[in-house]
Amino acid sequence: MKTVIIGSGNVAYHLAKALLGSGVPLVQIFGRNTEQLRSISYETGVPFSTETLSDADLYIISVRDSTIGEVSRKISNPYSLVVHTSGSIPLDALEGNYHKGVLYPLQTFSKSKPLDYKKIPFFIETQFPEDRVILKNFIKNISPKIMYADSTQRQYIHITAVFVCNFVNHLFAKGKEIADREDIPFEYFLPLIEETVEKIKEVTPKQAQTGPAVRNDKNILVRQENLIQDEMALAIYKIMNQSIQKMYEL
Amino acid sequence: MKTVIIGSGNVAYHLAKALLGSGVPLVQIFGRNTEQLRSISYETGVPFSTETLSDADLYIISVRDSTIGEVSRKISNPYSLVVHTSGSIPLDALEGNYHKGVLYPLQTFSKSKPLDYKKIPFFIETQFPEDRVILKNFIKNISPKIMYADSTQRQYIHITAVFVCNFVNHLFAKGKEIADREDIPFEYFLPLIEETVEKIKEVTPKQAQTGPAVRNDKNILVRQENLIQDEMALAIYKIMNQSIQKMYEL
Repeated sequence: MKTVIIGSGNVAYHLAKALLGSGVPLVQIFGRNTEQLRSISYETGVPFSTETLSDADLYIISVRDSTIGEVSRKISNPYSLVVHTSGSIPLDALEGNYHKGVLYPLQTFSKSKPLDYKKIPFFIETQFPEDRVILKNFIKNISPKIMYADSTQRQYIHITAVFVCNFVNHLFAKGKEIADREDIPFEYFLPLIEETVEKIKEVTPKQAQTGPAVRNDKNILVRQENLIQDEMALAIYKIMNQSIQKMYEL
Repeated sequence: MKTVIIGSGNVAYHLAKALLGSGVPLVQIFGRNTEQLRSISYETGVPFSTETLSDADLYIISVRDSTIGEVSRKISNPYSLVVHTSGSIPLDALEGNYHKGVLYPLQTFSKSKPLDYKKIPFFIETQFPEDRVILKNFIKNISPKIMYADSTQRQYIHITAVFVCNFVNHLFAKGKEIADREDIPFEYFLPLIEETVEKIKEVTPKQAQTGPAVRNDKNILVRQENLIQDEMALAIYKIMNQSIQKMYEL
């Protein structure tokens, strides 16, 4: 399958690396940002363009959510399969007369950080049932973890990812603010953080819960509320404890 | 040093295992819960009692926060060093005429799960400066990561731990609720969760932040708010995004 990647952000970069690493050649990387395209092209050896989109069997659109519709109108081959990679955008945001699909990699990408692509779950959706097999066989080159999810399911997958990745990272950031203020090196918390993740591989998060809220230790809850100086940290503290206590009916 | 552990919960259990594993003998495990004491004693070979507290040079009190004061009154040897293991309780909660200290292991413990004790950071505090060296040399048997923290600092260490462990785990639990409702296996999120933790070993959490809030993607934020059905999940969603946007001044 002649494959073109459209976009030059973190997802486009890593998909290009993952595909080339699995022996899938790319015809072109297409986009607007010349500098980023040149950098990906230099690293991968794939030609890039900001002007003329190559003809292809498969177009993978990895651009910011708000520009997917606009970008997808550049493709005119009705036999092509055109997929975007967004968690929150429905399949029919692709505007054009071609085969539509979605290829959502459930991972957080930064350009600087290498990833084990084989571990990434891919959620796929296609407009036509026959394209499902085609897309699945294509992605099997990267990862064996492929699951079908329609646009509604995918939106909830994305929301879950926001909770377990984006919000978790923000708790790390707020925790670090508190530790920094007391001159406690944040790296001391890494074994605790790693163990928090290790636990949920063996028991459910609900079973793994520890801390003053689930112990219903009101003395500590009140004392900690009084110690937290940052307004947003305090708001988070209150709502999280309330939610923990509601989950355990305390 | 003749050492006694008081308590039979998760921390007492793991401290006993860690000390014995490092070749530090224990004189006794003392507590109230006969069943749990018998189980620890059976596994470690250390005698237990619910009645007569052995004489010792070092008493490690690992009981629930609210009973530390009461338990500590049982010790009458003025030459003993008596430490509790709580993050939130000040040193002077120990009531008695002996040398007082604190030995706070920064980790989340479950009885069923083995731990690499060498990775646990221990925060110590002592009433008398000369006991600091004694306690430090004792704990070096378990872990090289030992830091001094006074009662105020330790309270903030505990609050940070609540954010990066207890609250993070609750986000996993709320995320799992959302995924379960859509029949998405939660284990699909594990690579994403692991990568979220890997990232903060290389950059600060503030630098690692991704997601719709830090991208200031208002369309997605509004759409996701409308999709979340659970009241507490929605409250968490709103406050976390607000806090992220405040941190980045968006």
